Amino acid sequence: LTSRLPKVGTTIFTVMSALATEHGAVNLGQGFPDFHCDPALLDAVTQAMQAGHNQYPPMPGALALRQAMASKMQALYGLACDPATEITVTAGATQAILTAILAVVQPGDEVIVLEPCYDSYVPNIELAGGVAVRVPLTPGSFRPDFDRIAAAITPRTRALLINSPHNPSGMVWSETDMRRLEAMLAPTDVLLISDEVYEHMVFDGQAHQSAARFPGLAARAFIVSSFGKTYHVTGWKIGTVVAPAPLTAEFRKVHQFNVFTVNTPMQHALAAYMADPAPYLELAAFYQRKRDLFREGLATTRFRLLPGEGTYFQCVDISNLAVPERDLPEGDFCQWLTREIGVAAIPLSAFYGDGFDQRVVRFCFAKKDETLREGIKRLASL
Amino acid sequence: LTSRLPKVGTTIFTVMSALATEHGAVNLGQGFPDFHCDPALLDAVTQAMQAGHNQYPPMPGALALRQAMASKMQALYGLACDPATEITVTAGATQAILTAILAVVQPGDEVIVLEPCYDSYVPNIELAGGVAVRVPLTPGSFRPDFDRIAAAITPRTRALLINSPHNPSGMVWSETDMRRLEAMLAPTDVLLISDEVYEHMVFDGQAHQSAARFPGLAARAFIVSSFGKTYHVTGWKIGTVVAPAPLTAEFRKVHQFNVFTVNTPMQHALAAYMADPAPYLELAAFYQRKRDLFREGLATTRFRLLPGEGTYFQCVDISNLAVPERDLPEGDFCQWLTREIGVAAIPLSAFYGDGFDQRVVRFCFAKKDETLREGIKRLASL
Ligand SMILES: CSCCC(=O)C(=O)O
Ligand SMILES: CSCCC(=O)C(=O)O
Repeated sequence: LTSRLPKVGTTIFTVMSALATEHGAVNLGQGFPDFHCDPALLDAVTQAMQAGHNQYPPMPGALALRQAMASKMQALYGLACDPATEITVTAGATQAILTAILAVVQPGDEVIVLEPCYDSYVPNIELAGGVAVRVPLTPGSFRPDFDRIAAAITPRTRALLINSPHNPSGMVWSETDMRRLEAMLAPTDVLLISDEVYEHMVFDGQAHQSAARFPGLAARAFIVSSFGKTYHVTGWKIGTVVAPAPLTAEFRKVHQFNVFTVNTPMQHALAAYMADPAPYLELAAFYQRKRDLFREGLATTRFRLLPGEGTYFQCVDISNLAVPERDLPEGDFCQWLTREIGVAAIPLSAFYGDGFDQRVVRFCFAKKDETLREGIKRLASL
Repeated sequence: LTSRLPKVGTTIFTVMSALATEHGAVNLGQGFPDFHCDPALLDAVTQAMQAGHNQYPPMPGALALRQAMASKMQALYGLACDPATEITVTAGATQAILTAILAVVQPGDEVIVLEPCYDSYVPNIELAGGVAVRVPLTPGSFRPDFDRIAAAITPRTRALLINSPHNPSGMVWSETDMRRLEAMLAPTDVLLISDEVYEHMVFDGQAHQSAARFPGLAARAFIVSSFGKTYHVTGWKIGTVVAPAPLTAEFRKVHQFNVFTVNTPMQHALAAYMADPAPYLELAAFYQRKRDLFREGLATTRFRLLPGEGTYFQCVDISNLAVPERDLPEGDFCQWLTREIGVAAIPLSAFYGDGFDQRVVRFCFAKKDETLREGIKRLASL
């Protein structure tokens, strides 16, 4: 058997979570909350099930959920989109991105990714027979380097994949960044896949600059959202893709032959729960407080803090630690940190195709305050 | 934009369900129950959610569910399989089949499908860059034609996709069929993808001949199951793939970058519910009674009954009806039947790449007795 993905092992998030469990470590690696979601959301699922919503929903998703998403896109980003032809419910954001890529990338087409990036992007492109063109974000700041992006665009470029707020760096694209991107793509027919799963986690009074706000981008974009991240239910695996009708039509052709449809009772529960915008409007303040608590704690350690403008991730530089293990490759360092210090983290090198090692690791602060405090206590020993 | 699937429209099941809703027709088209599942299963979901099972499960699936599946495979089919390395939980059977194909089919590889077949198979192969080789089942009986299958195997054949109990025909492979297949594949390295989602709906005292029962097949097979079909919750979208460790390893590489994981609370609920084998052991009797009721009713009409040994589908020949519309192409006939007679059905031609029209349509009898009676009443007018 010849592997379709010869370079791929088990995703780092799974590896580190298993290691954390094995060693009883504080798991600040994989991105998921260790606290509970709103009980009202669980009640909504029970109600949906009792109401009999247990059979296939419409292929593009429960209409109520698509309508709720349309209202949100309008209210937050000023985008009018048609639930009938421009919104599809997916089994999470990862499925959304693979499906979009399978729908538009022909064998040999190039897709630009900005590194560091989530570890599914490049294998997704390769599964579609495409060629991943890796463009680095600016080292240190993780900001887009528009000259390098522009230089990477060729007549074979089918799509550009962006992600803001950015996993793993926590960097957030500004309005100026998005306008520059809009201008750069204007003369091209490059499609945009905009992974916006951390849209409601932008801090310090900044606003999330969704591709939906920029007509020149929205007209060519698959905009990917995640309910799991917004509502503290990462295990529910429900997201959405908003895209202009012609793109949505191609998306759905593949979607229907990938998952066909998505969990019905959860869709109905989410639709009901979305009627109140407070949970997502208040999410930034909720996580900003946790970020501040975590950063204040880390500031008392020898880990050097990197900026964190959004997401529930915080990156740190490890080169100043008072232990020889700081010189290990990032991956080995994270294994050691999990085993010996009892804190799991994710090495930044896992987000680079060439394993670029810049002495940086990522922590997730979507955790109870007590978990964060215990993590910091352990990290302070280094 | 060049379509990756230029010949594909919206799947027939979605089209016919939408048409049925629009015209208030009795929906005997798309395969899903119009009755409720066991309330105990819903309670199990509520309990799993309350217990906090709302974050990412392990990437291959909740361990308890994989263990429950392993016990079932052993008890029913005598297959010992390791939950750690040989079972993966999927977002339904369609995702399982696409993922298996993406995992093993290289561009240019051939995959044999037996027509009529489920409408996702061929697009799945094409998305992987493979070549679908269509081999007809024996016309009329829908039994495997082993000479034609053998003749279709070439050095480029990567896999064979089979489906028993068979959608749409309701035909069931016998032990002799499976042994013949085992012998035929023995000298080859052709992989098997065995879609067994109707495994618990085999009638008249026959046993389901899972590929798991035949060592020469199990050693090369992805065996695909569906909880939605077995437990009357088609909208939950949870299935499993059982495959030898080396195949599972490749499967999971793709799976983790497709859906990553599958709805957590539903997995825990299913694991708990599987502790009692009665629901799946009693399913054949449950559906056999419905099949008999439906067939008895149809026998009073001018529709000519075809055999039905398994699944919740019943095919009929329409050429004897007393209306001129019987001469319409099958697809148009089904549209007419939905609109004018108020009964939705699926044309067999939708299961053939070339639209082969043999005057046969498929009804689904996973319906309340009163729904089946109302459907028959309407069909009796023809
Ligand atoms: C889907 S796996 C883990 C979650 C995540 O997005 C991350 O940790 O980066
Ligand atoms: C996944 S769509 C419909 C269900 C089904 O399997 C069928 O009707 O054939």
